Amino acid sequence: MVSGTPTLQWLDGTLRLIDQTKLPDKFEFFDATTVEECWDAIKRLVVRGAPAIGAAAAYGVLLGLNDREQDTTDSFKKRVNDTCDYLATSRPTAVNLFWALDRMRTALDKAGDGSPDTLYDALLAEARRIEEEDKESCRLIGKYGAELLDDGDTILTHCNAGALATVDYGTALAVVYGATEAGLNVSVYADETRPLLQGARLTAWELMDRDIPVTLITDNMAAVVMAQGKIDAVVVGSDRIASNGDVANKIGTYGVAVLARYHAIPFYVAAPVSTIDFDIVSGEDIPIEERDPDEVRAFRGTQSGPEGVNVFNPAFDVTPARLVDAIITDHGIFRAPYRRAFSKLKYEIG
Amino acid sequence: MVSGTPTLQWLDGTLRLIDQTKLPDKFEFFDATTVEECWDAIKRLVVRGAPAIGAAAAYGVLLGLNDREQDTTDSFKKRVNDTCDYLATSRPTAVNLFWALDRMRTALDKAGDGSPDTLYDALLAEARRIEEEDKESCRLIGKYGAELLDDGDTILTHCNAGALATVDYGTALAVVYGATEAGLNVSVYADETRPLLQGARLTAWELMDRDIPVTLITDNMAAVVMAQGKIDAVVVGSDRIASNGDVANKIGTYGVAVLARYHAIPFYVAAPVSTIDFDIVSGEDIPIEERDPDEVRAFRGTQSGPEGVNVFNPAFDVTPARLVDAIITDHGIFRAPYRRAFSKLKYEIG
Repeated sequence: MVSGTPTLQWLDGTLRLIDQTKLPDKFEFFDATTVEECWDAIKRLVVRGAPAIGAAAAYGVLLGLNDREQDTTDSFKKRVNDTCDYLATSRPTAVNLFWALDRMRTALDKAGDGSPDTLYDALLAEARRIEEEDKESCRLIGKYGAELLDDGDTILTHCNAGALATVDYGTALAVVYGATEAGLNVSVYADETRPLLQGARLTAWELMDRDIPVTLITDNMAAVVMAQGKIDAVVVGSDRIASNGDVANKIGTYGVAVLARYHAIPFYVAAPVSTIDFDIVSGEDIPIEERDPDEVRAFRGTQSGPEGVNVFNPAFDVTPARLVDAIITDHGIFRAPYRRAFSKLKYEIG
Repeated sequence: MVSGTPTLQWLDGTLRLIDQTKLPDKFEFFDATTVEECWDAIKRLVVRGAPAIGAAAAYGVLLGLNDREQDTTDSFKKRVNDTCDYLATSRPTAVNLFWALDRMRTALDKAGDGSPDTLYDALLAEARRIEEEDKESCRLIGKYGAELLDDGDTILTHCNAGALATVDYGTALAVVYGATEAGLNVSVYADETRPLLQGARLTAWELMDRDIPVTLITDNMAAVVMAQGKIDAVVVGSDRIASNGDVANKIGTYGVAVLARYHAIPFYVAAPVSTIDFDIVSGEDIPIEERDPDEVRAFRGTQSGPEGVNVFNPAFDVTPARLVDAIITDHGIFRAPYRRAFSKLKYEIG
């Protein structure tokens, strides 16, 4: 059993990540010791999932600062900001990346004009807070989300918004874990989630590892399992939520939301409030990453489409708020109208 | 260029099939010389697509009769019927298989009590008629279907209902070919169609081979390309159509139909009338083949899901008639109410 191993660990100057590109065949670690290795790990999806990316980036900032003997306070601060700018270029959609880097910058500002070592300690403390808060947030999401499920429910999920997408415990799957811990019998249908198959490789693996009943389906089977009455609720994670409640998440989420509405199945999004981007009006403003066409033409090097075939490969889509029945956060459950609810939330959390 | 090569050819006692399990990497033939090899070719999807399965099975009957020197008329007839029974067990959903085998049985009955060689010639003539009628049907589907498209249209299709799914020219893709021959510029988005990737491997390959603009997407991207206004119509094939207009087709078709309705995009089914099963009341009576779970756990032999993970793998789903805007056949275009239209059709074609 490998459950319980956190997605990322800070080991005295090294960022140890579960290498999610290797699952489910191999359970291996990827040790990032430089900021470039951290950037690459985020880019290549060694670590993925919005909350996990945020925490990894926070520690990634520290990796750029191991060698600080020659630094003055000013040169150190400049390096921190340059490193934050650099890490922010790794992936464009998950807002938690920018949120975590902003917290690191703010922590630096608050730390004043101490020595590089003092500033480093302040940054390390902030990264640890981000990590600890993420764990706590996920537990709260699980606790709140469990209230939406009944004993015997089967949920459908898309991609992986589990322990592997966070420091630990997950967002969408936290709802499953929370319900299980509350004594409910809950089972899961997992969309395999092409092109990178996070549902097959990560969600199915993670749930089997935790003895939660899971059935793996291809993405195009979601409609038929809904029509057959097998699904009581859909729960997914998110990479960015706009201030009107529009939700960016893994490509395919929008289609699942339309299908859920057609079949009168509730569609829930689970995410920490750090995933809410209060600065953007709607999902139209969320940048959508387009990835290498070879991800669609092949899987792990096994060709499917003809060589050179034209491909469309957006990594995310946007589900409009009108299709989202509730957003389960670490600050409770929100329902439409989201703009009003989020305005109040923003005021409360400052 | 390999376009123009028919999906199947009868070469003096051998059934030559394009081996569709090898595409798009290799263009190879599979030569069936025994009825068992034909059964296996249908089962393993060397030949697939409802009309192609029907024609292959018709020739498959002949493969069981090469060695008939010792036969009496009665023993020959018994062997024909046994061979038909056997071939009918290869796959359960496509009605064209049973339709073609019934035609072979009827041809045998009509041929009376001649010598085995005379009966064989009657059966060969019937198989050739099935092959030729399929070619003609596809052309007519293309001609009628083209009337539903406009210049500049982009259609989305699922699985492969192209030349490779018929003797030649296709059903859903016949509409594209018919429109192109009528001088319209038409382009295609092809769903890759997990688990066996007929869209990526066959449809994308077939369209590139014929210089039709095609963009390959994963199945879960269909919703977003619809939402972005990229799709003017959905056209798919069918494996069996019930007398109320319910349509069985490759798994994922039902979801595409729901998405098309949500986005107010017309959803068309293209099939020869031999695909209509006048004997069944609704789609609920269509047997749905479930296939090997390893098809979902892997991707052309490359593992995706964890070993032993529970899987649901229906090969087909049923789209209710209410989501079908028109059924394009070789006898013209049908619209709801389908039960009435099909009653009239059944009377007309006997």
